[in-house]
Amino acid sequence: MSSVEALRDPQSLTRLLAPRSFAVVGVSAEPTGFGARTVQNMRDFDGPVWCVNPKYAGQELHGRPCFASVADLPGAPDSTVIALPRPGVMDAVQALAKKGGGGAVIYASGYGETDLPERAVEEQELRETARRMGFPLLGANCLGFVDHRQRVGATFMPDYVKMTAPAGGVGVVSQSGALGYALMQAAERGFAMCHMTTAGNATDLDVCDLAAFQLTIPECRSIALAVEGLRDARRLFLLGEMAASMGKTIVVLKLGRGEVGAKAAASHTGSLAGSSAAWSAGFKRAGMLEVGDFDALLETAGFFAKAGPPKGRGVGIVTPSGGAGIMAADHAEFAGLPLPQPAPETERVLRSAIPDFGSPRNPCDLTAQVATNPKSFEDCMLAMLNDEQYATVVFPVVYHNPAPAATPTRMKTLEPMAAATGKPICIAWIPESLEGPGAEAVDVSPNLVLFRSMRRMMKALSLWFERHDPKPAAGTVDARAKAAAAAIPAGAATLMEAAAKSAFATAGLPVVSEHRAKDAAGAVAAAQALGFPVVLKLDSPDVAHKTEVGGVELNLADAAAVTAAFGRIMAGVAKHAPKARVDGVLVQRMEARGVELILGARRDPQFGVMVLVGLGGVQAELWKDVALDVAPVSPEGAMAMLRSLKAFPLLDGFRGSPKLPVEQIAAAIAQFSGFAAAMGDRLEEAEINPLVCRPDGCVAVDGLMMLSA
Amino acid sequence: MSSVEALRDPQSLTRLLAPRSFAVVGVSAEPTGFGARTVQNMRDFDGPVWCVNPKYAGQELHGRPCFASVADLPGAPDSTVIALPRPGVMDAVQALAKKGGGGAVIYASGYGETDLPERAVEEQELRETARRMGFPLLGANCLGFVDHRQRVGATFMPDYVKMTAPAGGVGVVSQSGALGYALMQAAERGFAMCHMTTAGNATDLDVCDLAAFQLTIPECRSIALAVEGLRDARRLFLLGEMAASMGKTIVVLKLGRGEVGAKAAASHTGSLAGSSAAWSAGFKRAGMLEVGDFDALLETAGFFAKAGPPKGRGVGIVTPSGGAGIMAADHAEFAGLPLPQPAPETERVLRSAIPDFGSPRNPCDLTAQVATNPKSFEDCMLAMLNDEQYATVVFPVVYHNPAPAATPTRMKTLEPMAAATGKPICIAWIPESLEGPGAEAVDVSPNLVLFRSMRRMMKALSLWFERHDPKPAAGTVDARAKAAAAAIPAGAATLMEAAAKSAFATAGLPVVSEHRAKDAAGAVAAAQALGFPVVLKLDSPDVAHKTEVGGVELNLADAAAVTAAFGRIMAGVAKHAPKARVDGVLVQRMEARGVELILGARRDPQFGVMVLVGLGGVQAELWKDVALDVAPVSPEGAMAMLRSLKAFPLLDGFRGSPKLPVEQIAAAIAQFSGFAAAMGDRLEEAEINPLVCRPDGCVAVDGLMMLSA
Repeated sequence: MSSVEALRDPQSLTRLLAPRSFAVVGVSAEPTGFGARTVQNMRDFDGPVWCVNPKYAGQELHGRPCFASVADLPGAPDSTVIALPRPGVMDAVQALAKKGGGGAVIYASGYGETDLPERAVEEQELRETARRMGFPLLGANCLGFVDHRQRVGATFMPDYVKMTAPAGGVGVVSQSGALGYALMQAAERGFAMCHMTTAGNATDLDVCDLAAFQLTIPECRSIALAVEGLRDARRLFLLGEMAASMGKTIVVLKLGRGEVGAKAAASHTGSLAGSSAAWSAGFKRAGMLEVGDFDALLETAGFFAKAGPPKGRGVGIVTPSGGAGIMAADHAEFAGLPLPQPAPETERVLRSAIPDFGSPRNPCDLTAQVATNPKSFEDCMLAMLNDEQYATVVFPVVYHNPAPAATPTRMKTLEPMAAATGKPICIAWIPESLEGPGAEAVDVSPNLVLFRSMRRMMKALSLWFERHDPKPAAGTVDARAKAAAAAIPAGAATLMEAAAKSAFATAGLPVVSEHRAKDAAGAVAAAQALGFPVVLKLDSPDVAHKTEVGGVELNLADAAAVTAAFGRIMAGVAKHAPKARVDGVLVQRMEARGVELILGARRDPQFGVMVLVGLGGVQAELWKDVALDVAPVSPEGAMAMLRSLKAFPLLDGFRGSPKLPVEQIAAAIAQFSGFAAAMGDRLEEAEINPLVCRPDGCVAVDGLMMLSA
Repeated sequence: MSSVEALRDPQSLTRLLAPRSFAVVGVSAEPTGFGARTVQNMRDFDGPVWCVNPKYAGQELHGRPCFASVADLPGAPDSTVIALPRPGVMDAVQALAKKGGGGAVIYASGYGETDLPERAVEEQELRETARRMGFPLLGANCLGFVDHRQRVGATFMPDYVKMTAPAGGVGVVSQSGALGYALMQAAERGFAMCHMTTAGNATDLDVCDLAAFQLTIPECRSIALAVEGLRDARRLFLLGEMAASMGKTIVVLKLGRGEVGAKAAASHTGSLAGSSAAWSAGFKRAGMLEVGDFDALLETAGFFAKAGPPKGRGVGIVTPSGGAGIMAADHAEFAGLPLPQPAPETERVLRSAIPDFGSPRNPCDLTAQVATNPKSFEDCMLAMLNDEQYATVVFPVVYHNPAPAATPTRMKTLEPMAAATGKPICIAWIPESLEGPGAEAVDVSPNLVLFRSMRRMMKALSLWFERHDPKPAAGTVDARAKAAAAAIPAGAATLMEAAAKSAFATAGLPVVSEHRAKDAAGAVAAAQALGFPVVLKLDSPDVAHKTEVGGVELNLADAAAVTAAFGRIMAGVAKHAPKARVDGVLVQRMEARGVELILGARRDPQFGVMVLVGLGGVQAELWKDVALDVAPVSPEGAMAMLRSLKAFPLLDGFRGSPKLPVEQIAAAIAQFSGFAAAMGDRLEEAEINPLVCRPDGCVAVDGLMMLSA
């Protein structure tokens, strides 16, 4: 694959995305027009806002001065919204660039997304013009952006002026404009955001460039990223590195997971990997946290904007309702979160504060008496927060209560406790009154986090622990992998079993002992050298599925059996594939049974070479149990892949089965992935199937490689 | 198990739960007291509300007349809240019953849920007194109820008077009071409910009795039921039958599904949670629709209150945002819902109405132009609704728009379209502005349904189709099953392999051919009679795990092998289990390999005898892939169990494996379940492991039964 295009220097986007002066090209007097709505959304912006429309030159439009043309503007606008239909866009871009503007937002649609080839060309010209002139573009076909710190509402969407929540730690980047704006509307109910931007067609800037810019915003602690597709998904790795180096968190939602999954590739490895799985592996490799639901995206990003590294790995639950406590415990368990019992001194406090029909345990049921005894609530909450087992304490608001000393007040009591202990308090907001009193106090708090679903809360907490767990090192391509790749002649198309395994062996992988033989006598000699019993396999460059021509004979115990088997193989290929070139047979030692794995590698159109592992045979497909990662993986990375398999217990002594040398297996996977990565663009697919794993080691028994033309 | 206690006659609960006169015993002048709050919540009730407190007799309390005692009340109140602490409750109950009251709500806690034995006795006495006097009780340890039709706010929870949404089709029944009230708060934002009641300790009435009452409310179309545990879960079957006969739907959430949650549930209301899988099977058998999340409970019930039987089995998606359309398609695919493409005439309408950057497909992307062209929106929506492939059309509200002709108006446009076509329109409410303008118009509409999560929406739609699919017939216990059960002598404890299989054979199951033999010569004779190869197994009433004492010898090809194997078995048991009684060996025909299933049956403390099927060996456990149902199952029910297994393809010709006679296997499961059901309370556990399944049939090769003492 070509090299990855670097992320746009965030500083070069400051004028466009965090402007101090602003223009709108194409504003009419009609207040519902896209330009007019943009001007209205800029109401609370502190800098100049200029309109451009020759019809109203010298007048005011929607309270802002209007000019005849870009050239007539009193200065070079940092940021400009081009609210013109498509045909006028190119001229406006060029005029703005000449004027010295900092970049433009293009609302117009009808470019490449139409599937009309001439429109794709038009978009391409727009991109090239903008890049040549050093003038960055947001869109086309986008809804604009919001810089909530400066109250820049550079969008035609309704009612930005209503979003009065103070700026906070979450940035939003969305390819889809509507979805980005749907998220932005959280600022109507107090949710703390700093910046929102939509990418649309990403004619120039894609979501990675935009997120990289938001990372440089000091207030920004986390980013909610909604992505549909990228021209080059490997830019996510650059973005992820940048986020990691700054200690910021990116939470990502991938749209279009079902559809892409349906385009399963023809080959076995391809169909298992699926593109959706590739995206998940790519996000993970980029250090991003993937959520599966739109409703989890902003909520989870909001959590990471507030929570630092966890102190402890357990979750405490304090509840005024037994039912809510049970629910929290259920979902914690589903998410694999530990719910340790309180330490003795914590329990002492709980026992003294909780009535006999409550529960001084975890979940800690204070009962409805908290309504009348706020002191007991505070004592228990603080005791739980101070218990070093708990990284956070979950407090469900079960029904909201607007009465004095009820929900809003209680939220204000919690804030200093969380601040003092340096632990976030997670509020599970259960009432069907979704924005009831008290919710806003949580959203604006720096230490309280609101979740409207127990499931999403517990999933976010599990991502929290995962995010701060040590990561396996990245993989490397060693000298053997490079040598094996270099040894494969240019122009080769498919390496059949013998050639593929020979390449794997050069790359440092354990492969089955075998000899080639041209005739029955040679096969017998080879068998005697290897030791009986042996396997005979047809050796032909033209036959990929040997069993279908009777080309495999197993468990041959002596010379006579080998001779007979050789004859049957030759007869079979003559009958079923009369035109195939036949080089003879491979003679292999018959391997004892073991757990059979499949290792696969393929070049993914998004992320480059990826590696896959699962049980061999029909198992991986039947149970949909495979692990996928971007190649190369390190041995620790390969071990994490193995451990993520539901089938892992089969390698690990499950129910009396033998313990297998998993580190050796992981090393083989890592080595295989390094070789595949060394092949790079030359690789279509490589497969070891099976890798036979036994207590004394693992060995590749069959394999294949397909190379790109 | 004992027979199931019938559901309480709903008519006998009308006075308590839908009263025309009302009293509160234990009201103080303090407005935050539980009694006072109840009186406040009764503000909009049309009938008399009487207070009882000797201190204020003859005065008014919170605007209502107060009396010295129950005896002094001017009439017999239909419904009474007893807001007294526990010690005063029994006297109040007796006084009210004597007065001729219709029943009482008990707020007080501190009964059986405390784990103090004397409190459990106190609760038991309360139950017996109430039942003896024919005076039904709600609670103890509950939050009361709401009859939203008559504005009865019989609860101490805050602000019922704020819940002004008109009464509608959903009833809510919750064991946990706080959770019930959390759901009720949906009526603050327009959600249409008719009745809400909490069961608390269920001292007298449990959630089944309460739901049965709600079923008889004419307005009630569906019930949202939150359950933690029941004294006798089989009452759910009675409730389910009642709902089915009335064409109403019960949506259920089980709390305490995890281990920690189950423990917390046990201490919360003193009920045994039981296994989560057993509950799921029980709900299904009762015809109830289970959801996994609290946030799905009311939403899903709300859908069923509005949607009749589906016309068609496909889902159409119409969206103003490409991103939201992709999201909807993703979640439809995850939920297994078909997304058929529009019929030709539908597509013709779409093509003429949608711009070239949109998509006249399913999902149908209208693009943001709908904002300026309402006519095109209406044309497309109606065309999709009229397409007979679609049971419903999903319309995402992506960002809410309060402008004229925007979200609220659009919702009002949709209502008559849904009404005219008799199809519900599902609104996916995406904006983070959760209660933004337009949402309420959907909640109060009889034909539009609001979901705040794509995942939950698609899951609800899949439950909709499932609910209206034909159900397998119930299973029966036939004469052979009864005879086999009758033949097992009273007092037997464990039936080892031979005895168990003999019972299974009597019950009509196919079992492996075998003979018993006391010595080597007998074993050889038996083998010759059966035909070689054979298997020898130790026959001892004292050894359950034969392989652990070397008690199994496979694949014995001739007389000499049988003789030698007999010797090894006897030596093995002498060494490893010297005290075991030894009856000899079982000689079995060596069965060819096949797919091995395990059939299990056990007496569940909640639901009686249940039957289980999964792959044999370690597979079922490793992949957590088993099907469970209440015994007896019919052959069609057993077939549904088999089809629900992820492993089902292994029986059905997966990847070239042979097709197995699944109907024969299902018949064996049904027969096994009938026998287990015939055993009833006498059964602890029965197991066939393995049932070997081959193209020519299935056969039980090993088995065991454990009987209750």
